[in-house]
Amino acid sequence: MAIFTKVTKSQYQVRYYSAPLEMAIPPSKKKYIPSSGTYPKGFLVSGTHVGVKASNTKFPDLALILSEVPCSAAAVFTTNKFQAAPVQVSRETLRKRHGQGIRSVVINSGCANAVTGRAGLEDAANMGKKVDECNGLKEESTIVMSTGVIGQRLPISKILDKIPTAYSTLASTHDAWLTTARAICTTDTFPKLLSTTFTLPSSPDRQYSLAGMTKGAGMIHPNMATLLGVLCTDAPIAPTILHPLLTHAVSRSFNSISIDGDTSTNDTIALLANGAAGGTPISSPSSDDYTAMQNILTGFAQSLSQLVVRDGEGATKFVTVRILNSPDYNSARLIASTIARSPLVKTALYGGDANWGRILCAIGYTQGVAPGTVVPERTSVSFKPVDGSPELKLLVNGEPEQVDEDRASAILQDEDLEIVVDLGGGERGEKGLGGEEAVYWFCDFSHEYVTINGDYRT
Amino acid sequence: MAIFTKVTKSQYQVRYYSAPLEMAIPPSKKKYIPSSGTYPKGFLVSGTHVGVKASNTKFPDLALILSEVPCSAAAVFTTNKFQAAPVQVSRETLRKRHGQGIRSVVINSGCANAVTGRAGLEDAANMGKKVDECNGLKEESTIVMSTGVIGQRLPISKILDKIPTAYSTLASTHDAWLTTARAICTTDTFPKLLSTTFTLPSSPDRQYSLAGMTKGAGMIHPNMATLLGVLCTDAPIAPTILHPLLTHAVSRSFNSISIDGDTSTNDTIALLANGAAGGTPISSPSSDDYTAMQNILTGFAQSLSQLVVRDGEGATKFVTVRILNSPDYNSARLIASTIARSPLVKTALYGGDANWGRILCAIGYTQGVAPGTVVPERTSVSFKPVDGSPELKLLVNGEPEQVDEDRASAILQDEDLEIVVDLGGGERGEKGLGGEEAVYWFCDFSHEYVTINGDYRT
Repeated sequence: MAIFTKVTKSQYQVRYYSAPLEMAIPPSKKKYIPSSGTYPKGFLVSGTHVGVKASNTKFPDLALILSEVPCSAAAVFTTNKFQAAPVQVSRETLRKRHGQGIRSVVINSGCANAVTGRAGLEDAANMGKKVDECNGLKEESTIVMSTGVIGQRLPISKILDKIPTAYSTLASTHDAWLTTARAICTTDTFPKLLSTTFTLPSSPDRQYSLAGMTKGAGMIHPNMATLLGVLCTDAPIAPTILHPLLTHAVSRSFNSISIDGDTSTNDTIALLANGAAGGTPISSPSSDDYTAMQNILTGFAQSLSQLVVRDGEGATKFVTVRILNSPDYNSARLIASTIARSPLVKTALYGGDANWGRILCAIGYTQGVAPGTVVPERTSVSFKPVDGSPELKLLVNGEPEQVDEDRASAILQDEDLEIVVDLGGGERGEKGLGGEEAVYWFCDFSHEYVTINGDYRT
Repeated sequence: MAIFTKVTKSQYQVRYYSAPLEMAIPPSKKKYIPSSGTYPKGFLVSGTHVGVKASNTKFPDLALILSEVPCSAAAVFTTNKFQAAPVQVSRETLRKRHGQGIRSVVINSGCANAVTGRAGLEDAANMGKKVDECNGLKEESTIVMSTGVIGQRLPISKILDKIPTAYSTLASTHDAWLTTARAICTTDTFPKLLSTTFTLPSSPDRQYSLAGMTKGAGMIHPNMATLLGVLCTDAPIAPTILHPLLTHAVSRSFNSISIDGDTSTNDTIALLANGAAGGTPISSPSSDDYTAMQNILTGFAQSLSQLVVRDGEGATKFVTVRILNSPDYNSARLIASTIARSPLVKTALYGGDANWGRILCAIGYTQGVAPGTVVPERTSVSFKPVDGSPELKLLVNGEPEQVDEDRASAILQDEDLEIVVDLGGGERGEKGLGGEEAVYWFCDFSHEYVTINGDYRT
């Protein structure tokens, strides 16, 4: 840590290791916190202080989300081979219940309950059971999530003792949703909560709502990492189609962002649909309602996942990388992901350095790309400013441009940037462009990232 | 860059963006610089100031290595799809000459001559031609390397003008070798030069020498990255077996280290054997001499490549990660590489934080591992101190140990650390341990890394 511990905290962005104080939210991030919302009918939520970390003496660290009626539910989980206890327990619950009859989600921050052996599995199961008891239910009806340090047992008695409090304080107000969103935070500097309303083609006069909360902020990379998310809607969706709907949305949102390329043991995104707003259930993937729901859910998940990038640990930049004219989608996605993970690209962006050679480098060393995808003489790279001014060409068909460094620096001063890589159709370029496109969202790599992660457990 | 530019340079490790001043070598790194050496017969070297970067007004940035007699030569090059001009030119020279008749290596630092189109290819070829002219040779006999910023043309006239100076100052002294090693440095804080003597089974009384120089320091990851290296020996080795010898050594050395996981456009490791010390040429891979040479070369390349890790950009730690009892070698290597690349592992090591959960995480998300390799209940992780004291067990067969945090912190204070991951044979563990082992060397991720790479081009 050397000299940087001597820098007073006020000199850089303050970041707490548990849910942040309201007053500590950086001024630049306040615009991402909604001051009101329209939340789905029949859902009640609460955020409660437990003190999972002994050092947390007052901030909420237990989130409870409950539906007054049984929900269709689906979840996508981390692909890490070390699966945290709550991941194992929740997957089993969803399997047993065939994605039906789910009533609640309970989440603690401050401890991941990962790599905790058999005892950890019991702890996770007991968290869910306690919620079901409060709810008067005998069958497993609760999805459990945890986030925080790996390899430590949960202070399970403290958590179980506070679940009745969490239950008794459930509410449907905007403030309740915001407190709940805050309770799942770890190194996040602001709670991530969004809500929206929509209609479906089959009943254009009926208003549905969709709300979601998520948390980051380190270890974010597909397939997800210390990333938790809960999406709730009062639209009626059959359990059989909930999982494909969620998978489609997540692959284009939470699995298309990168903070540091690390992938955690605990990641879970759950979707609950309670149908409380009425209407005909969506049950066929070939219906207009399904298509509409898919678009709404995917767009919403993208907006929500972008908040995670905005709050990437130490992030000062929000970068979109768009790969155009790739012969195939998978190669485009791999290239986007590799650029998004490159420490050299990320530090150059942090330093406001238009070092596009590093972007090329990352394109060139991407593993697993189909042969003939990357042809240097067909590759072009440019920066696209967010203010709508013309893009700045850096490389055109493999030849470097005379770059206006002043304009490049000016573009890199903005918080937002889009990097466009045009593969020109790869080897098939002469016969016409390939046309596949992939997008990734990522942030830069800063001193602050190192500070946060050099000393996370203290 | 924000507040950190206000920290005076003397407060942290000084690092220049061109060859470092002798006086600027950090005290902790001085022990890695040899004060004498025994160099292979028939090789002459020089380091000359050109000023490839206009800001470099006095440090050597042009290295010339010449053999008085024709050499067998081989090289391994970057696998990046964007191959720098010198890589393309040198590969073609070796192909044309069938790995024989090579006389020199010329290297500039300060500009990579990468992504510079046709003009860049001409520049690289002209560098080689100029050396051959000085040497009175008409056929291409020179390997060319460049390192530095991507996407800028070489100041080729300045370089060509100085090649005769470089040629006229060739020498075989230790100081000449050290100046040459310094001339290839970029962000390195110290020149990396080693030499050794050895004998071969067929002529135990004949002394051979092997010398090598290399440079890092960012973008190091297989298959190599802004990594240049030259190995010279006066042993007689047939060109047909030089390439397999080099490939074997590099895969276990330069391709088993990681600074940041980025892979560059310019990486080249060349091996020259001029036979000037006499004796029977090694020509059969089944001979004892071949086996001996392979072991000597591999061990030497490992020592040389470890110097690159010691000088990783911003590095404060030298970490060995050893994967034991893997069902197959490739999976073990992938896991080692993934741990070595994880920003979360690297920042935790920098912070002296025994956050072994992040090591597990990295094991768990390693891509491409054979099924049944990673079984949580068979996985053990420990820290092995370099002082010979007993290892500190962190996880045993998937169950976390009660870790003595004081001892963990003490171990993490040392510059050197070994992380041991025992896969217990994976799924086949019950029938006996798998036994494959892979080793990687890497460094931590520091504030200094971000500082260096946030502002490299200025």
